[in-house]
Amino acid sequence: MEDKIIVKTKYFKLNKPIKLECQKELSDIEVAYETYGELNEAGDNAILILHALTADAHAAHYHSKDDKKPGWWDTMIGDNKAFDTKKYFVICSNILGGCKGTTGPSSINPNTGKPYALDFPVITIEDMIKVQKELIDFLGVKKMIVVGGSMGGMQALEWSISHPDLVKSTIIIACAPRLSAQGIAFNAVARNAIISDKNFNNGNYYEGEHPERGLSIARMVGHITYLCEEAMHNKFGRDFKDKPSFDFGVDFQVESYLEYQGRIFVDRFDANSYLYITKAVDYYDPTKKYGSLENAFKNTNSRFLIISFSSDWLFSTEQAKTMVNALVKDNKEVSFVELKSACGHDAFLIEWEKQTKIIESFLKG
Amino acid sequence: MEDKIIVKTKYFKLNKPIKLECQKELSDIEVAYETYGELNEAGDNAILILHALTADAHAAHYHSKDDKKPGWWDTMIGDNKAFDTKKYFVICSNILGGCKGTTGPSSINPNTGKPYALDFPVITIEDMIKVQKELIDFLGVKKMIVVGGSMGGMQALEWSISHPDLVKSTIIIACAPRLSAQGIAFNAVARNAIISDKNFNNGNYYEGEHPERGLSIARMVGHITYLCEEAMHNKFGRDFKDKPSFDFGVDFQVESYLEYQGRIFVDRFDANSYLYITKAVDYYDPTKKYGSLENAFKNTNSRFLIISFSSDWLFSTEQAKTMVNALVKDNKEVSFVELKSACGHDAFLIEWEKQTKIIESFLKG
Repeated sequence: MEDKIIVKTKYFKLNKPIKLECQKELSDIEVAYETYGELNEAGDNAILILHALTADAHAAHYHSKDDKKPGWWDTMIGDNKAFDTKKYFVICSNILGGCKGTTGPSSINPNTGKPYALDFPVITIEDMIKVQKELIDFLGVKKMIVVGGSMGGMQALEWSISHPDLVKSTIIIACAPRLSAQGIAFNAVARNAIISDKNFNNGNYYEGEHPERGLSIARMVGHITYLCEEAMHNKFGRDFKDKPSFDFGVDFQVESYLEYQGRIFVDRFDANSYLYITKAVDYYDPTKKYGSLENAFKNTNSRFLIISFSSDWLFSTEQAKTMVNALVKDNKEVSFVELKSACGHDAFLIEWEKQTKIIESFLKG
Repeated sequence: MEDKIIVKTKYFKLNKPIKLECQKELSDIEVAYETYGELNEAGDNAILILHALTADAHAAHYHSKDDKKPGWWDTMIGDNKAFDTKKYFVICSNILGGCKGTTGPSSINPNTGKPYALDFPVITIEDMIKVQKELIDFLGVKKMIVVGGSMGGMQALEWSISHPDLVKSTIIIACAPRLSAQGIAFNAVARNAIISDKNFNNGNYYEGEHPERGLSIARMVGHITYLCEEAMHNKFGRDFKDKPSFDFGVDFQVESYLEYQGRIFVDRFDANSYLYITKAVDYYDPTKKYGSLENAFKNTNSRFLIISFSSDWLFSTEQAKTMVNALVKDNKEVSFVELKSACGHDAFLIEWEKQTKIIESFLKG
């Protein structure tokens, strides 16, 4: 086995406040980010990786030799991988509103010396991009490729629309240009579970018990939407963990899985961040903002690759195709692939081999 | 407009304890039921209506002249309706474990003088049928038709399997012979929401605040599965209730709908009953019990009508067909219809005209 490549998360502090979509200003923003590979002199070999709901800046390699797991998309980023660090300067930053090093509701509010909690302004996908833009400028990037899955895809989409001068290629994976009513409904349930937790305390829980039960229920809901019926059936079926308990503990394997996912999530994620980020996803809607998706894409200068997965019901192929159709109407260069997979929405994190082939060919083209 | 027919819920007390699937005995069981029409002398013109998760014995007509709404399946039961009360003696009883008049966790435990709460034994679909059987005998029914949608369909299915001597026709609507892994997952989330509520108190909440937030979240989850993406899109789309709030209140129409459904539900339903009934649904699995669905159906003496709805993703057409295929293999008489509908699982309560045609023709046949 080859030596582990060790990387460090770096931090960038914005030197100006950002005016947010909600019309509030946010200052003292810090951004956690990682880079892999080297930026060329022209500053045009960058790839910006945009992460999904609960991921972070640590997209590839390891933080230490003892790390058991590499970054969340290590299968895709590295020497000779889909995003080849021998050729490209790959950047990934934690989103605004997150809890992995970039300013969010758990950060200290400089005005009070305490965590923002719900005094943190409600942020949008557009706000995330504004913050990333400062980082990109700081790094000296002149032209770049943007790539993201799920909510990361929404960010990639928004980058292509709002910065046609900067974005030369856009890869949108397992994504829709806006969340469906059903998706909003799931997010509403998740937020309700957090807000109803006895420890939520209107978001001011940082000094006491965190709303762990609520957050774990939110995560359970999420995982149902990340898998699909087929994946659940294949993974768990109706198998009992042990035998019928005839009580209200965990009976079935699928319950055990969800409970485990909920339990490990609360150790790594902040409940307030979950509220803010799901709200940003709910709000995102370039169709509404520009009147139509065709209008939204009109000024883009990017090539597009759009990938969907056959069993993804959170961001379906049908939804992905609305982007393809709009791009075709706009005479933009667009490639579209629906990959067969039984992994549901999670496929964008799992099916790296299939994606690698498609992406390599797109980046060469 | 014709005069409202007024009916009363009646009560039947079992004169013996019931041995449950969990091996415990339950005594002093009382059953709430209603009847419409008259039983003939032969006792063979009965139709037993089996209700779904949260319904009750009040399936048709009105309880008083001032009632705004009739029973939950009034569109289907009455003179010249699908279940014609001029011809048939129609019975509907509240299920064991419910909270609408039949003994359940909110009933008084005769041993303590207090509500059972979680001392109530975990019950199954089979247990529900055992209790209904006592009512059927008491009423003098010799032969009957059994009908149910959703969990009511599971009861109808179980009736046909366990009482081939009694059941001459079985109508199973919007149902599967067992819940999918995904369905179990949704129920697990719902139960977690209830159990995590700060007022749950291990089920002993009857003298204080009820776990209303948890129960309303459970109901929200339920409603997502009763609708479908298409129905949600048609009903709500991404319409805002007002405009973006930039806070964590209700923003979208779909959130408003779910919140309303959650809020009105807690006034009419007991959280403990929700735990017990969803568990009964999770457990039900004649395929496992009999080794195969063909084996389960082998001794039935019933004609079958199985109806699914095209947009029902909780109990899909595919799942319904597993019953049809097993019955065909067993050389049983079975009719199957998939009705086109955009109403999702809820269709069995909404699409009464389509169902009426099919059912009338089946009952004549």
